[in-house]
Amino acid sequence: MAVLGIDLGGTKLAVAVFAETGEIISKETIALDDKQGTEVGLLITEQVKKHLFAKKGTALQSIGVSVPGISHSKTGTVWAPNIPGWEDYPLLQELKQVSGNIPVTIDSDRACYILGELWQGNAKGSRDAIFLSVGTGIGAGILVNGMILRGAHDIAGSIGWMALDRPYQDKYISCGCFEYHASGEGIAKVAREMLNEQQDYRGELRNKQPEKMTAHDVFKAYKRKDPVAMEVIQQCIMFWGMAVANLVSIFDPEKIIFGGGVFGPGAQLIDAIKNEAVKWAQPISIKQVSLEKSGLGGDAGIYGAGFLALKNIDTA
Amino acid sequence: MAVLGIDLGGTKLAVAVFAETGEIISKETIALDDKQGTEVGLLITEQVKKHLFAKKGTALQSIGVSVPGISHSKTGTVWAPNIPGWEDYPLLQELKQVSGNIPVTIDSDRACYILGELWQGNAKGSRDAIFLSVGTGIGAGILVNGMILRGAHDIAGSIGWMALDRPYQDKYISCGCFEYHASGEGIAKVAREMLNEQQDYRGELRNKQPEKMTAHDVFKAYKRKDPVAMEVIQQCIMFWGMAVANLVSIFDPEKIIFGGGVFGPGAQLIDAIKNEAVKWAQPISIKQVSLEKSGLGGDAGIYGAGFLALKNIDTA
Repeated sequence: MAVLGIDLGGTKLAVAVFAETGEIISKETIALDDKQGTEVGLLITEQVKKHLFAKKGTALQSIGVSVPGISHSKTGTVWAPNIPGWEDYPLLQELKQVSGNIPVTIDSDRACYILGELWQGNAKGSRDAIFLSVGTGIGAGILVNGMILRGAHDIAGSIGWMALDRPYQDKYISCGCFEYHASGEGIAKVAREMLNEQQDYRGELRNKQPEKMTAHDVFKAYKRKDPVAMEVIQQCIMFWGMAVANLVSIFDPEKIIFGGGVFGPGAQLIDAIKNEAVKWAQPISIKQVSLEKSGLGGDAGIYGAGFLALKNIDTA
Repeated sequence: MAVLGIDLGGTKLAVAVFAETGEIISKETIALDDKQGTEVGLLITEQVKKHLFAKKGTALQSIGVSVPGISHSKTGTVWAPNIPGWEDYPLLQELKQVSGNIPVTIDSDRACYILGELWQGNAKGSRDAIFLSVGTGIGAGILVNGMILRGAHDIAGSIGWMALDRPYQDKYISCGCFEYHASGEGIAKVAREMLNEQQDYRGELRNKQPEKMTAHDVFKAYKRKDPVAMEVIQQCIMFWGMAVANLVSIFDPEKIIFGGGVFGPGAQLIDAIKNEAVKWAQPISIKQVSLEKSGLGGDAGIYGAGFLALKNIDTA
C-alpha cells in the first residue's frame, strides 16, 4: 500500500510517495516560479496524474494535501494568502476530477505539521499535542484527544492573534499582538524599532539596511551577544513563554513541539522559554508537559499530508 | 425515563431529578455546614440512596455529578480545593457501592456548565462553544466538536492562569494573571490596590473596610459612576476582552457564554467586552462568534450534571 502526500508552500510544491509504514518511497520538490491561481491548481493535478498513472511502483490508495492557509472542510475550497487568486480556490473539486475513486483529503499546513509529528516525528503516541509554528507568521496545529481542533469555521489555532501585552496598539491590526512581537517578521520589525530608538548603538545590526534585515541576521548577532539582538530575543522569549503558558493552561497537553523557520535557530532557546512559561502557567499542567523541537523540520508538512491520506483509508 | 443530577459546590449540594426532556421533576438544595472529607461523601451517597429507593416517581437510569475542582477520569477520584480532605477523594468508588447497575458519571463544574447550556441553555445545537465562568475564580468549560476538552490530565480550561500582561509579577503566583486581575476576588483586590494608591479619593468605596470589600460593592459603586469603581471595571473589561479574543483566535467557536457570580452584574458589560475583543482577535472568527450570558444562571451546573447522566445512558 502507498499514499501520496502533497505539501503546497508559498514558493514551492513538495510531492512524496509514502509506504504505510511512513517510509518515503520517492520525493520531489518543484518551484512555483510565481505561478498564480489555476496555474498552481494545474501543477498539483498534473503531479497527481503523474503518480496515479505511473507504470512502476505501488498503486496509490489515497491522497493528502497540505495547504498554506485555510482548508474549508464543508466546501473543499482553499484560502491561501500567499498564492494570488486562491481566495476561495476549488482545490478539492479539481483534484477529484483527476483522482477517480482514490480519496483526497486537504488540510491546513498547521494541522498537517502536528499530524506529521504524530505519525513520524516527536508526537508519536500523543493524543493531546500542539505544534507551535513560528516562521514568517505564527500558527498552531492542535491535537485534542487524537483529533485536529478545527473550530466552527476551520480557522482554529490562529494563535498569532493572541493578546499578550496590554493595552492594544494599532500596529497589531494586520497580524495580531503575538505575531507582531515574536514571528520571524516580527523579530526583524522589533529590531528595526529598537535601532530607531537606540541611536547610540554602533553594533553589527547597524550595518544592515533596515528594510533588508531578517530574523536570521538578528539570531546571528544574538550568537555574538550583540546588545540589541539580545534585547530583541529576550523579549521574544518572554512572548513565546507566555504563549506556551497559555496553551498549557488551556489545553493541558502532553507535548508542545516547536517548528517553523525560527525554530531553527530558536530551538536552542526552548529551555529559556520553558523557564518563562513555568512562571505563568497552571502549575500542575506545566510540570507534566514536554517541550520539544520538531522531529521532522521542514518535512513536517509533507509527512502530515501523507498521514492525512493514510487516515482517510482507515475511515473510508 | 429519569436521571439524577448532583451539583456539589463549595458550600452546598444541589440534587435534581430530570426527565430526559430536561424538565426538572424535583430539586433540593442542602447546605454543607462545614462538612469535610468523608462526611461530604456520605451526604452525597445518602442522597443517591434516597432517590434510588424512592417508592414514588420514575425509576432512575443514570447519575451525573458536578464537582468543584478536578475529576480524574482515569481513577474516578476528585480534587476539590474548597472541601477539606478532598485532595484525591474516591467519589466514583463510593457512589458505585450504592448505585448498583446504574451508571455514574463525574465531571468538573466547568465541564458541567457548558454541558448544561448545551442541553437546556444558550448553547443548544452548538458543537464548538465555551462557558467562561467568572466567580471567586475563573475557569472555562470548552466544547470542541461536540466533546468536552479534557486535556492529558483532566485540567484543561484553566484559563484563570492566562498570561495577558507582561512582565510577570510575583502576585500572580497563587492564581494566575487573568484571575488576579479579573475574577470576583480579583476585582476586590484591584480596588483595594487602587484605594491605597489614590489617597485623595473620598468616594463610597472609602467607607468600606478594605478586607471586607467585595466585587458586589465595586459593581454597586460602578453603577453610580464612582471613579475608582469605573477604573477597576474598565480594566476588567480590557482583561475579559483580551481573554475572549484569545479563546476566539484559538478555538474559532460558535459561542462564548458568560456565567458565574460576576456575570451576574457583569452581563451588562458583554457589548463592551466584545468591543475590546474585536481589536485583538482573529478577524474572521470574531465576526462570527456570538457572545451571550448564561441561559441557566446558577443552575448551569446541575443541568450539566443531569446531561452527564443522560449522555451516559446513550453510550452505555
